Amino acid sequence: MEFFPMIKKVKYEGPKTENIYAYRHYNPEEVVLGKTMKEHLRFSMAWWHTLTQDGSDPFGAATNVRNWFGETPMETAKNRVEAGFELMEKMGFEFFCFHDVDIAPEGDTLQEFFDNLDVITDLIKEKMDQTGIKLLWNTANMFTNPRFVHGAASSSNAEVFAYAAAQVKKGLEISKKLGGKNYVFWGGREGYESLLNTDLQLEQDNMARFFHMAVDYAKELNHEVQFLIEPKPMEPSKHQYDFDAATAMAFLQKYNLDKHFKLNLEANHATLAGHTFEHEMAVARSYNALGSLDANQGDVMLGWDTDEFPTNIYDTTLAMYQVLENGGIAPGGINFDAKVRRSSFSMEDLVLAHIAGMDTFARGLKSAAKLKEDGFFDKEIERRYKSYTTGIGKSIVDGKENLKTLTEYALQHDQIENEPNHLEFLKSRLNDYLV
Amino acid sequence: MEFFPMIKKVKYEGPKTENIYAYRHYNPEEVVLGKTMKEHLRFSMAWWHTLTQDGSDPFGAATNVRNWFGETPMETAKNRVEAGFELMEKMGFEFFCFHDVDIAPEGDTLQEFFDNLDVITDLIKEKMDQTGIKLLWNTANMFTNPRFVHGAASSSNAEVFAYAAAQVKKGLEISKKLGGKNYVFWGGREGYESLLNTDLQLEQDNMARFFHMAVDYAKELNHEVQFLIEPKPMEPSKHQYDFDAATAMAFLQKYNLDKHFKLNLEANHATLAGHTFEHEMAVARSYNALGSLDANQGDVMLGWDTDEFPTNIYDTTLAMYQVLENGGIAPGGINFDAKVRRSSFSMEDLVLAHIAGMDTFARGLKSAAKLKEDGFFDKEIERRYKSYTTGIGKSIVDGKENLKTLTEYALQHDQIENEPNHLEFLKSRLNDYLV
Amino acid sequence: MEFFPMIKKVKYEGPKTENIYAYRHYNPEEVVLGKTMKEHLRFSMAWWHTLTQDGSDPFGAATNVRNWFGETPMETAKNRVEAGFELMEKMGFEFFCFHDVDIAPEGDTLQEFFDNLDVITDLIKEKMDQTGIKLLWNTANMFTNPRFVHGAASSSNAEVFAYAAAQVKKGLEISKKLGGKNYVFWGGREGYESLLNTDLQLEQDNMARFFHMAVDYAKELNHEVQFLIEPKPMEPSKHQYDFDAATAMAFLQKYNLDKHFKLNLEANHATLAGHTFEHEMAVARSYNALGSLDANQGDVMLGWDTDEFPTNIYDTTLAMYQVLENGGIAPGGINFDAKVRRSSFSMEDLVLAHIAGMDTFARGLKSAAKLKEDGFFDKEIERRYKSYTTGIGKSIVDGKENLKTLTEYALQHDQIENEPNHLEFLKSRLNDYLV
Amino acid sequence: MEFFPMIKKVKYEGPKTENIYAYRHYNPEEVVLGKTMKEHLRFSMAWWHTLTQDGSDPFGAATNVRNWFGETPMETAKNRVEAGFELMEKMGFEFFCFHDVDIAPEGDTLQEFFDNLDVITDLIKEKMDQTGIKLLWNTANMFTNPRFVHGAASSSNAEVFAYAAAQVKKGLEISKKLGGKNYVFWGGREGYESLLNTDLQLEQDNMARFFHMAVDYAKELNHEVQFLIEPKPMEPSKHQYDFDAATAMAFLQKYNLDKHFKLNLEANHATLAGHTFEHEMAVARSYNALGSLDANQGDVMLGWDTDEFPTNIYDTTLAMYQVLENGGIAPGGINFDAKVRRSSFSMEDLVLAHIAGMDTFARGLKSAAKLKEDGFFDKEIERRYKSYTTGIGKSIVDGKENLKTLTEYALQHDQIENEPNHLEFLKSRLNDYLV
Repeated sequence: MEFFPMIKKVKYEGPKTENIYAYRHYNPEEVVLGKTMKEHLRFSMAWWHTLTQDGSDPFGAATNVRNWFGETPMETAKNRVEAGFELMEKMGFEFFCFHDVDIAPEGDTLQEFFDNLDVITDLIKEKMDQTGIKLLWNTANMFTNPRFVHGAASSSNAEVFAYAAAQVKKGLEISKKLGGKNYVFWGGREGYESLLNTDLQLEQDNMARFFHMAVDYAKELNHEVQFLIEPKPMEPSKHQYDFDAATAMAFLQKYNLDKHFKLNLEANHATLAGHTFEHEMAVARSYNALGSLDANQGDVMLGWDTDEFPTNIYDTTLAMYQVLENGGIAPGGINFDAKVRRSSFSMEDLVLAHIAGMDTFARGLKSAAKLKEDGFFDKEIERRYKSYTTGIGKSIVDGKENLKTLTEYALQHDQIENEPNHLEFLKSRLNDYLV
Repeated sequence: MEFFPMIKKVKYEGPKTENIYAYRHYNPEEVVLGKTMKEHLRFSMAWWHTLTQDGSDPFGAATNVRNWFGETPMETAKNRVEAGFELMEKMGFEFFCFHDVDIAPEGDTLQEFFDNLDVITDLIKEKMDQTGIKLLWNTANMFTNPRFVHGAASSSNAEVFAYAAAQVKKGLEISKKLGGKNYVFWGGREGYESLLNTDLQLEQDNMARFFHMAVDYAKELNHEVQFLIEPKPMEPSKHQYDFDAATAMAFLQKYNLDKHFKLNLEANHATLAGHTFEHEMAVARSYNALGSLDANQGDVMLGWDTDEFPTNIYDTTLAMYQVLENGGIAPGGINFDAKVRRSSFSMEDLVLAHIAGMDTFARGLKSAAKLKEDGFFDKEIERRYKSYTTGIGKSIVDGKENLKTLTEYALQHDQIENEPNHLEFLKSRLNDYLV
Repeated sequence: MEFFPMIKKVKYEGPKTENIYAYRHYNPEEVVLGKTMKEHLRFSMAWWHTLTQDGSDPFGAATNVRNWFGETPMETAKNRVEAGFELMEKMGFEFFCFHDVDIAPEGDTLQEFFDNLDVITDLIKEKMDQTGIKLLWNTANMFTNPRFVHGAASSSNAEVFAYAAAQVKKGLEISKKLGGKNYVFWGGREGYESLLNTDLQLEQDNMARFFHMAVDYAKELNHEVQFLIEPKPMEPSKHQYDFDAATAMAFLQKYNLDKHFKLNLEANHATLAGHTFEHEMAVARSYNALGSLDANQGDVMLGWDTDEFPTNIYDTTLAMYQVLENGGIAPGGINFDAKVRRSSFSMEDLVLAHIAGMDTFARGLKSAAKLKEDGFFDKEIERRYKSYTTGIGKSIVDGKENLKTLTEYALQHDQIENEPNHLEFLKSRLNDYLV
Repeated sequence: MEFFPMIKKVKYEGPKTENIYAYRHYNPEEVVLGKTMKEHLRFSMAWWHTLTQDGSDPFGAATNVRNWFGETPMETAKNRVEAGFELMEKMGFEFFCFHDVDIAPEGDTLQEFFDNLDVITDLIKEKMDQTGIKLLWNTANMFTNPRFVHGAASSSNAEVFAYAAAQVKKGLEISKKLGGKNYVFWGGREGYESLLNTDLQLEQDNMARFFHMAVDYAKELNHEVQFLIEPKPMEPSKHQYDFDAATAMAFLQKYNLDKHFKLNLEANHATLAGHTFEHEMAVARSYNALGSLDANQGDVMLGWDTDEFPTNIYDTTLAMYQVLENGGIAPGGINFDAKVRRSSFSMEDLVLAHIAGMDTFARGLKSAAKLKEDGFFDKEIERRYKSYTTGIGKSIVDGKENLKTLTEYALQHDQIENEPNHLEFLKSRLNDYLV
């Protein structure tokens, strides 16, 4: 059965094409700054939004029209594997990501869940071998099932901690089996509803214990996977412990986990925390912790996670600028943690929305590359900070000054002239680099 | 000259008093949980808001009517010392705080500024000796003068770094001279307007260098002062580096400064960062870094720092609950970083507003003490987390489990029952503890 | 069958009671300002949150444990009628509210839906007759079913408009049958996702046509019902047409609907729009359009509709102050459009949460009454605006001045002295009126 | 004296130019959709931001380096006229806007202020006659002076009302003298700090009285000026009465002022109110009240009015799309209510920032024109709403249906199929229209 009959192979046809099922900007083999676009962008399909999301919202029932439902949950799960790989192959995805519950039904017992996972991951492995498509990362969903109502690793109920541990153990084994290069933790319920009834210290200690167990088990498996934490400030919890990149780094340092973990950053999570996406990336880079990206966009007028497909070229340009500065995003990638609007409910929309996102990131990459090639901001930054390359500035950077020597200097140099930034000019010029 | 003739000595007269210049709730010598209210609360007057703020805003000129202006800036500065100590004595403040520029005119040269500071701090010292009022903390204003347009320690101009260093050196000497127990850094311009022209890495490295120099110089002075960072997410900068408590802790750990620094937390800065005040305090406590408090309140409907005098008894109850959990706030205190509304422009308002704030904190202290004495939330937390005190939970906390042993356990215990939180009940019961 | 065996009759037992199933503050027959608390507060149970909400959220499955599920949807619907009236009687509710889909299954056809509604409303009517409990308002759910994906009255699909019209016709007939005194429209999907593909003018014209049809049909039915619009700024839509009270009033005036409609205001919708609840009430009052209240509270740190049970006594005091100023809320009431937290999933929580909300509103009523009796703010307002009761101010209010006469006056009176507001004092004094 | 020696005449040189003082996109005489760009855009210089703003912020002193300061306030005022007209001529502005206090010192008495205004407006008139540059609008600043601490037309002090009336009378006379085509009211202090001490009804009635007086006086002057209200939700007030476009329209209708007033919409005010700029424009258009535009941009991560020069081409494209739909913006215009960042403090920045804003709007115009010429969204909207052009939809629009007839229809047509929106596709395609 063909799930996406409206496409054969989605190809680059350039911006003038009338074919809505073609890339207008993403040209996988085109070389940009010495690498192909495919190598730069490492696009990944997100199993949950693309294959299991149904279009419901807190005020509305499911709208999505999908053609993979079978007679049993397992049949549906298998059909999704077929559909997912068909879509990935036709669209040219090299990677995918999933939560355990996305790929296989939970069943009635933990053992049944594990058994279901074994069946489906066998099928996935077979598909991976056939197609060469790879696992960017997997993760355990420890937030949907009612048992996680009070959290997972931070649950007030020790039995839930144990259950979550079992899910992660299985997840790491699947990661090993499928050759996953990253393993993600997103703590949607690791936070609190009210401080009044929360033992914040115990909950955070328990999370650290949990992460150390995961690190230890990966070592035991001899599986060199990059662990990633994905920050989000709130939703579903009132306040989540991994609020943003900096908060996650504070936690990781406190518990000696910073050697083992990097960050998986999501655009919409950034804006919910009051930051731009590029800010979160810059913060992560300052801790050498930029791991991978969840590509989507939020609506800055709305206070919840809208997970829209990225269509804003400013955002993707500034994100890709950070990726270029980072020397690339591998072993991470750009995973479309994005869902079609509830009103884009057709199978066609799944294809159109991914094309929209990929084209927008392709434009971002090309724009960012143009900026780097021209050295526009590099020159500007060089100009701004030149005082730290000679004289008193260099001496400060070299660690040769202290408050006393600097006071002597300042008493002699207290009539300071600063240079203007010309920010309006810089922001306007940015527009001329957009592709 | 008497600056506040409307009051002699502001006394506790209880909630029924008709005297608007009396405390209705703050009774300094009343014993609560074994300490006097005065010892718990350690109230401090903020020089800037109380003595120099003029009532202007970005759309309006100064409105405040003040009686301490002299013929010269130095005369005004001296009058403010008189007025400030008169107010503190009459109201029973034990502490005060200031920025260098609050107390003395900057003059035309750095040397002139230092000279002015020497004159004024001599006068302040004299007043302190006479009255027994103490310096909670001082700080350097490195954000108002145009020279700090691009930052201070993070300025792109090395000469500005040097100038700032000189201010901090002087500030530490003043701290030693006046017996200050804390020294604060608030980096209002330590942040960025745009990432496009910012070398974030260099700027943060320079800030760390700057802080280490301060630590070293205090050591050299033999001055055992507690260093404090005051986080704020934005305003005046687009994005400030010390965004919130967690961000500050990430930075301090990264640069090995966490041994030397704690946090000075402000209520309104917390809400601007998307947190409650008590959240920021709880986070600081989890890093053993709750240093001191800037008492005010924001308007959650407004996106800027309104610095209102605290009048909300929920906020002060939950803040004082954290203080009690912390075993007190000393050597920090509760500093009224709060300004009268522009329409409360009279000298009388200065008195009335401080009474409002102190009464509200007194109510908060009494309410929090009542909660602790009754053990209301303690019992609730004990109940919630009891699974970690025996069996598998205790074994997890004791570090005896790993993913494999927990998986075995979970396979046998996968039908989990959680207990409800009764959050609505808890929040409603809180009301019955409010004094 | 008894659905709420944990309670017999919830009674007022005062703040010292140890019985968690008693009112500590709500004393229905207690007289406040000449009316019983029951008459002031006119509490209503919301069918949807209390009887059909399941505890799910966008990241989590249902958690609520409920005992009314039957073998068929109709059996469940009937059980809910029994359970709802049992709860209302035991707790002393006089009113209830519902959407059509809350009370009866939609079935496969519109006719089947109507038939189901007839069966259930017969049963409800019987219960109403037995108990004396009344219908505060009903409404049509025109947002959950996928057919409303593009709106209802504002849908781009005319067939959806017709379908919605049929629901409202049935709703008005039910209102007549059950003696409802208000009929509500909340336009959760009446808004847009993107202006790019929206004919805003046609959509608003169609909404006005729709409302006029409802007004006409109520007249035809000889049913004197008060129509109410319930504003909300966003969620589920990106932008809803009835953004807030003022926006609704602009629309109603434009289309000559302001004679027929008042507003049903919800606390959490107010805060999502950037307003306080009392602001929305004050605006409605200025248009003589305060109709009814949806009682809940939001979390000002979160950007979505949390619909929490009200527990903040500031909010309820200020809301009840507006109700008192309005001369009461009848024929409207105070409807608990509030849901238990996902972690308060037990049947007990339903009772505890309603007690929390009712006690909090009772405190608000008593506090507001104390303020009115004392005339605290009335006196303050009288003092502030006294200049409009004599001289030039009175002449302005009497319509006797113009720009020329006022200019002559101003040229003679241009050295103006204003009086301070003492806002900090006022806000602090408010605390002393809280009960 | 030449104030802007760095430029002679700023010309269009195209996107490849290396000259930073040239337009890269704004080509005044280029014809777009049958009109020159100049005719479409009607750019205006804002006196306050360009000539009087000093770079200060609530935490920082003035930074701007300006060369027009004279020995006396009047000399400075005259220099500003020279500088302003020099800049406008060199840059090709056709319009300007001002508050009364921007152009002339207030002096010590109202009479002195009027006299100063007479002198300066004589000079301005002379310049206008020489250059052909026109007055887009003027307004009275009734918010900066301390006398307006409690508002102007809504002040609790009737003497302030009179003073404000005198300012508006003078403003209308100046408007007549200079041939102004619009007259603006922005009520920065017309709002409240607290509802507790506010007589909202009296304050709004007084504002309506005030506006009617202005309308009457313009009639008396025989001056056909378009009155405009400029909405803003907050800042400096806690809550302003003209919150947004819809709120202003509710007020204008209530007081029968909607015949005389349209709206002056500002981008940053829109975002502070939780709306996009194009939303506010669309709302205004639905009331036939789109009057004029204040061009700037806010920072959606910040909660105050940043008034940045527009550099975002999405924003200007969507704004110009609304202008084109409106058939143009005349007699209004596009006024740069935008200020250089505090760090862009040089005279050069004034020129660079205006070029940035004009180029960005020129790009927006060209992009919007391309969209209109192609009919991209028009076709999409036609497709979406086609059901209202025939059958039941047409009958609804024609007013021939009622709830009964529609119910009959719905019972026969209850199996509804909606069409998907393809929003992701639409938003991605928009990028290909950006110039």
